[in-house]
Amino acid sequence: MSHAYNESLKAWRANEVPIGAVIEFNGTIIARAFNQVESLNDPTAHAEILAITQATEAIGDWRLNGATLYVTKEPCPMCSGASIMARISTVVYAVPDPKMGCLGGAGSVHELPRLNHRVAVRSGVMEAECKAVLQVYFQRKRADS
Amino acid sequence: MSHAYNESLKAWRANEVPIGAVIEFNGTIIARAFNQVESLNDPTAHAEILAITQATEAIGDWRLNGATLYVTKEPCPMCSGASIMARISTVVYAVPDPKMGCLGGAGSVHELPRLNHRVAVRSGVMEAECKAVLQVYFQRKRADS
Repeated sequence: MSHAYNESLKAWRANEVPIGAVIEFNGTIIARAFNQVESLNDPTAHAEILAITQATEAIGDWRLNGATLYVTKEPCPMCSGASIMARISTVVYAVPDPKMGCLGGAGSVHELPRLNHRVAVRSGVMEAECKAVLQVYFQRKRADS
Repeated sequence: MSHAYNESLKAWRANEVPIGAVIEFNGTIIARAFNQVESLNDPTAHAEILAITQATEAIGDWRLNGATLYVTKEPCPMCSGASIMARISTVVYAVPDPKMGCLGGAGSVHELPRLNHRVAVRSGVMEAECKAVLQVYFQRKRADS
């Protein structure tokens, strides 16, 4: 998660909502990404989606069975769904999101009864550090506006 | 929807699960895409995601308020979420998907109570034609295997 945290700081420096993600596979980090919605002008350019695309390029297979996605905030509906479509084995997130999170927060798309792939979920890892980054970012954003 | 249907046939010819999508904005089609998971080796390369990225490039804004997404099958969790993140106004789909669909089928991520954007949903448009394409594709796939 510390690597995902470092990615979130890169997002902050790029004036993006500071969320970072990494994907680990066989003990190696095969993808690192941060949120780039504004700089790429693309609403799908969340850290998780960029990391998943990077990871599938790295291993030459779009099926990421066995991989773990670490992300600093609970994935939104799109990214929760992407982790299922990409067949990621485990998602570990830092900060729960009761508004938009879909791996247990606002919803639980990983628990839909008829999915053909199951994602295991862990949360709360490095929560305080990752939450602080998000809070300070939004406080400053509000102060600037 | 007939344009989305034509996109689904392109997917079929490319040996991909035959799903197509188009995005309409101010009376013009600004994006056309078909599922390319296998050919791009990318689990996020669903028709809807590719169309959303194309549409935001076309109008120079990642916010697609006012746009309508037409897609031949009910969007999966990822693509349902992407339509919310992209602030699409309306999603029209042909074939409901009670297994994976998340705009009313298996789940309803567009109805999460605290979303900051609401997507309107219509379904059943050209359902028979789009369903036939999917059914025949999977029948042949099973026969080949």
